[in-house]
Amino acid sequence: MIYFDATATTKPSQEVLDTYNKVNKEYWFNPSSMYNLSVICQNLIEQTSANIFKMLNLKDKFIYYTSGATEANNMAIMGLVKPYINQNKHIITTEIEHPSVYNTFKYLESIGFKVTYLKCKNGIINLDDLKASLTKDTILVSIMWVNNIIGSINPMKDIIEIVKKNSHAKLHSDMVQGFAKIKPDFAFNDIDLITITMHKLEGLKGIGLLISNKNLKLEPIIYGGHQQLALRPGTLDTGLIVSAAKTIRLALEKQDASYYYVQDLANYLKNKLNKLPFIIINAPSPLQSPYIVSISFTNIKGETAMHYLEKADIYVGIGSACNEKIQTLERTILAISLDKERANNMIRISLSTHNTKEDIDLLVNKLQELGSK
Amino acid sequence: MIYFDATATTKPSQEVLDTYNKVNKEYWFNPSSMYNLSVICQNLIEQTSANIFKMLNLKDKFIYYTSGATEANNMAIMGLVKPYINQNKHIITTEIEHPSVYNTFKYLESIGFKVTYLKCKNGIINLDDLKASLTKDTILVSIMWVNNIIGSINPMKDIIEIVKKNSHAKLHSDMVQGFAKIKPDFAFNDIDLITITMHKLEGLKGIGLLISNKNLKLEPIIYGGHQQLALRPGTLDTGLIVSAAKTIRLALEKQDASYYYVQDLANYLKNKLNKLPFIIINAPSPLQSPYIVSISFTNIKGETAMHYLEKADIYVGIGSACNEKIQTLERTILAISLDKERANNMIRISLSTHNTKEDIDLLVNKLQELGSK
Repeated sequence: MIYFDATATTKPSQEVLDTYNKVNKEYWFNPSSMYNLSVICQNLIEQTSANIFKMLNLKDKFIYYTSGATEANNMAIMGLVKPYINQNKHIITTEIEHPSVYNTFKYLESIGFKVTYLKCKNGIINLDDLKASLTKDTILVSIMWVNNIIGSINPMKDIIEIVKKNSHAKLHSDMVQGFAKIKPDFAFNDIDLITITMHKLEGLKGIGLLISNKNLKLEPIIYGGHQQLALRPGTLDTGLIVSAAKTIRLALEKQDASYYYVQDLANYLKNKLNKLPFIIINAPSPLQSPYIVSISFTNIKGETAMHYLEKADIYVGIGSACNEKIQTLERTILAISLDKERANNMIRISLSTHNTKEDIDLLVNKLQELGSK
Repeated sequence: MIYFDATATTKPSQEVLDTYNKVNKEYWFNPSSMYNLSVICQNLIEQTSANIFKMLNLKDKFIYYTSGATEANNMAIMGLVKPYINQNKHIITTEIEHPSVYNTFKYLESIGFKVTYLKCKNGIINLDDLKASLTKDTILVSIMWVNNIIGSINPMKDIIEIVKKNSHAKLHSDMVQGFAKIKPDFAFNDIDLITITMHKLEGLKGIGLLISNKNLKLEPIIYGGHQQLALRPGTLDTGLIVSAAKTIRLALEKQDASYYYVQDLANYLKNKLNKLPFIIINAPSPLQSPYIVSISFTNIKGETAMHYLEKADIYVGIGSACNEKIQTLERTILAISLDKERANNMIRISLSTHNTKEDIDLLVNKLQELGSK
């Protein structure tokens, strides 16, 4: 098997699974009970947050542990704007967000919020557009760091500065595809709300993190007990939570080495792809993640190519796994090209440290075979 | 360690952990992708639902896999009533529900829904009250099967009949403490929405189930991709989901044997407790789960007793773990006794097949010691 879809999910590492198993065998008590066995579990969770703060240089933050990035994105966005329903408030996002951000904004628009969807013709936002769209009524800006379809990297440092200087809006960023992969040129601490998830980093599914300013008042989207400041009630899963710190530590330790390895692979792949006349590389932005190489065929459907490669035991994506089944035209590709065909004819090749140049040779051979049919 | 708090959570069985590990090592692909490796994961999830349908004799249902019972309860209640905001609709629940139901109703009341909280003086609802409270505007009735504090068992068969005969309301039931423990005298299939969770049944935390009528239209409370009919978006965790079917199968296989074993323990315990003059057993209802024995001291605080027992390596609960920390007076105990002291002086002894009569002897000795101080 040659797996080129690490953007969709990754295989959990044995180390992370070991942590999960150890905690589930020894520290399976309900962390919300008050006896010492539970206090040990609570301490493990607090230690997890403390470790993550240290690794990411965070101060005065609180980590909400959720079921994944989708829930974390919803919590951040809805939690922040819920007190402002029917108050004519304004919120800003981009047209290339993941469905868990984009569809949340669509819902909020439907119940009366004024929404600006920033254009992303180059795969990233235009900073002047952002500045111009901020008003005194803007309460939230949500802009992803690295796009999940084409790997374009938004200029977060400038975004932070512009939002802070020109508004009172809070800044949220879905960092799922950038975190522990791309070296930030900004401080995580300068962003009010950050969403990350573990299963893209060889961690477990079912666990996402919302890193929030400590003093930021959110409203719950789920009601229940007092857990996690009563904002995200439900029995805490110490195993999944502790495994998150392990996942992050392992990913950060090898972040630079992985980046350079994958960057070399990406260059190798792009050089080869550039020689294939029936392929366009979708990479219009000045900064690109090497982990994601999106291409469109001039005359082959993405789905056809995906299944053709699959027969050779090679696996690529065709857009966000969260949206594949309903076969919506891929918003991101449409945003950068205004071309339905290019969206339909897209595949996403995700690279990881588990891939080799030999894998890429095999992939390119198959693409060549397909293109010359 | 003598653990009397299985109502709060249980240790995951090795079989369930094995299933989780196997799936995470072999079937870790994103179930929403379209290649064969992902289709296998999708099939495992569909097979899981099919197995659960078969085990519970369910037809025309859909199972939403959530992060736990709290989310499942919220999804059921908010998902059902969301289309009726500002329409003067009426909803019914009880005063002794788990916080994840009770606080959701409190929120809905705050945004304009008319709410009836059925009294539970005997630890269960009064059927005449239920009948009398149903109106043509009632859209939802949510009544728990087995109470999590005192183990009282609501007459679900009668409740189903009354709601069906006298209204168009949908019936939801939080069955977390009854499911796979108590033999139902009703058909699961006759309830529109059922919440269950795995970590109370020697399964894993982080996975709850909402079993819904297939044709029942719910609105999402979390927005995102198309997963789970777009009602509960986010990457599906095949490992947690498949482990749920294993958890349920193991629990159902031993349900009867466990029940009789625990019933015998409960009788043994209650006989001993009845001889202690400073203890009241909180069991006012005609039908009681043997898994939960709630007691109040005449003059000792529950928290004091809990910590006293803890020193002897004996662990009991003092109310819902989901509410312990904020030390709210326990709604359930207040509901049945109208006595603040009895609520403050409560401990909950949960019994399981891992407990023995020797454990109970040790517990009762310690209680005696404490009471004669």
